[in-house]
Amino acid sequence: MNDRNPLVHHITNSVTINDCANVTLAIGGSPVMATNIEEVADMVQLADALVINFGTTDESMYASMIRAGQAANKKGIPVIFDPVGVGATPFRTRRAIDLLNKVNVSIVRGNVTEVYALIGGKATTRGVDAGELTISKVELALKASQQLQAITVISGEHDVISDGAETVQISNGDIWLTRITGTGCMTASLIACFAGITEDWYSAAIAGMSVMSLAGERAKKALNDNDGIGTYRIKLMDEISLMNEQKWAEGVRFL
Amino acid sequence: MNDRNPLVHHITNSVTINDCANVTLAIGGSPVMATNIEEVADMVQLADALVINFGTTDESMYASMIRAGQAANKKGIPVIFDPVGVGATPFRTRRAIDLLNKVNVSIVRGNVTEVYALIGGKATTRGVDAGELTISKVELALKASQQLQAITVISGEHDVISDGAETVQISNGDIWLTRITGTGCMTASLIACFAGITEDWYSAAIAGMSVMSLAGERAKKALNDNDGIGTYRIKLMDEISLMNEQKWAEGVRFL
Amino acid sequence: MNDRNPLVHHITNSVTINDCANVTLAIGGSPVMATNIEEVADMVQLADALVINFGTTDESMYASMIRAGQAANKKGIPVIFDPVGVGATPFRTRRAIDLLNKVNVSIVRGNVTEVYALIGGKATTRGVDAGELTISKVELALKASQQLQAITVISGEHDVISDGAETVQISNGDIWLTRITGTGCMTASLIACFAGITEDWYSAAIAGMSVMSLAGERAKKALNDNDGIGTYRIKLMDEISLMNEQKWAEGVRFL
Repeated sequence: MNDRNPLVHHITNSVTINDCANVTLAIGGSPVMATNIEEVADMVQLADALVINFGTTDESMYASMIRAGQAANKKGIPVIFDPVGVGATPFRTRRAIDLLNKVNVSIVRGNVTEVYALIGGKATTRGVDAGELTISKVELALKASQQLQAITVISGEHDVISDGAETVQISNGDIWLTRITGTGCMTASLIACFAGITEDWYSAAIAGMSVMSLAGERAKKALNDNDGIGTYRIKLMDEISLMNEQKWAEGVRFL
Repeated sequence: MNDRNPLVHHITNSVTINDCANVTLAIGGSPVMATNIEEVADMVQLADALVINFGTTDESMYASMIRAGQAANKKGIPVIFDPVGVGATPFRTRRAIDLLNKVNVSIVRGNVTEVYALIGGKATTRGVDAGELTISKVELALKASQQLQAITVISGEHDVISDGAETVQISNGDIWLTRITGTGCMTASLIACFAGITEDWYSAAIAGMSVMSLAGERAKKALNDNDGIGTYRIKLMDEISLMNEQKWAEGVRFL
Repeated sequence: MNDRNPLVHHITNSVTINDCANVTLAIGGSPVMATNIEEVADMVQLADALVINFGTTDESMYASMIRAGQAANKKGIPVIFDPVGVGATPFRTRRAIDLLNKVNVSIVRGNVTEVYALIGGKATTRGVDAGELTISKVELALKASQQLQAITVISGEHDVISDGAETVQISNGDIWLTRITGTGCMTASLIACFAGITEDWYSAAIAGMSVMSLAGERAKKALNDNDGIGTYRIKLMDEISLMNEQKWAEGVRFL
């Protein structure tokens, strides 16, 4: 991807903003993180993709998200929406629905709970109980994609990606991807990098998600006995920055 | 702790927010970092503990701290207060006192200067001079705990923890813990994780503080000749994520 | 530098704020990151240098930058300005010029595009095209320094530093310094640490810039075959924290 160098504008949370910038660079993109409403529409004019992430959103940042999202729609670049924590509080769910009404989101990336909440499902304190979710993850991805009119990526033990017509599952990954913060946010950045250089956003979503899951798996295997999650984070970034077509083709597993 | 998985809500600074999220995961908790006043009270309803950190506080974040703190008091979950930089400017000291008037803090964690300023002591530019502090650290912890009606943790070469009646000192640690940012903030997160799963908040404070000091000591020993503070940060997170009861029991040293 | 321990106040962006704090500690300084307008002038009274960084600036943070900058001018401590992204949007360029009218900046550190935009040059989407820049980098540094009445540092393949009369070039560095976020911001912090302990701000600018470029070069050489940008970031911080006069004297290359 290095020769294409997509510029990815992020309006994102303060927890993982550094990780998102670095992962964008790792895969060969250029990150921009401007949030001031006075300039986000101009910044979108320079960008190849826009990431909107709901992690820690205050009022002025939310206004910037809407402004940037509408500018991205007008320009025709992909908008990747990461509904972090949606379902956890009524406020967050309401706000996500408000955003979906004002901005045409191209790709949604979340976990089961977030995507379920986004289409009107009732989430519980710690997420959706297995028993409560009456449909499979594949059905959820398909339904969400149709309802939201957006390619839908559900990260998890098996990742599911749907464009509303078909569905793909990826079985790469490692449980340690859930033991560090930011892997979800970084996946959205990776997807945005791929979506910024193609019109086939479905393939871009699959590419971004699979690079993260494969890199997470490879990073775990690269650990030594006394390595913990600190080293895992570093190796994960290493693996993403060293990913190439051959490694990907040899390592990725679709179900 | 992994089987208990306490949810720890943080309202904290942008400098070390990523470290706090990762350390919470490292010890087996789940971090939440929402700051919007519209949702912090709802988020507290899901949480097992609340961390309030004064690193970089703007007006809207401060309002969220008060709202979240009062919701935590009502719910009965522990509130851990990290008075970062209190004593450095009059504004910061006034604000800390204002917060203590509005929120019942369960555990305070700071360095000598911060705790001294919190109980009305006069701090100097670079902290409290040894000569100026007319009481010992043990006496300070005891006095602060009584005056603030909160368990008090003073991090330093020797850590002191007091519940207002008794006092414990920990002699683990390493000077390099002061050569990276965020070790204090992360200690507050660790304490919150332990306090979120027990009603014995004094023991939780001792547990969180001692895990950080012991991990800091172990991380230093794990370094190679050409390793600097970059590698030290990573090894510190590794050690915390790999800590267990046996290592702790063998390594911790109380005075 | 450890025995001098300059206190460096930063008002900076949320992307690289943690890196800036850690690099300040790595070189032997003490970082402060307070942004609330109620306290920034008081904080400057404690500081030896001030860094103003334009990465992600909202309105209240910008007001704090002006207040802190004017307090620093009054006190006589150096103000290091990092015009991140200036030239990318009209808003950012206008704001930079507004700041330069209100605060006497001692040292400016940017890339070619940012410095060019700062003195009225027209930047393009992805920076200044080689063909468009009608003057050499050396001439640009010289001209910018004269026009801005500030020591000017232009980071790049060759770094150029000018005080308006003479110019120095540094040929250390590595392309991977551009493959991680924050190396520019961290360079400003390093310069500030050196400027905080001397009145010779030109030498401080050369010192800070050369430490980053030399450390970046050394970190690359320290990598193993399977190391990517994750490990590179860590080794870079290691190298900065382990830098000393001997390594610097043996390694630095002026053109």
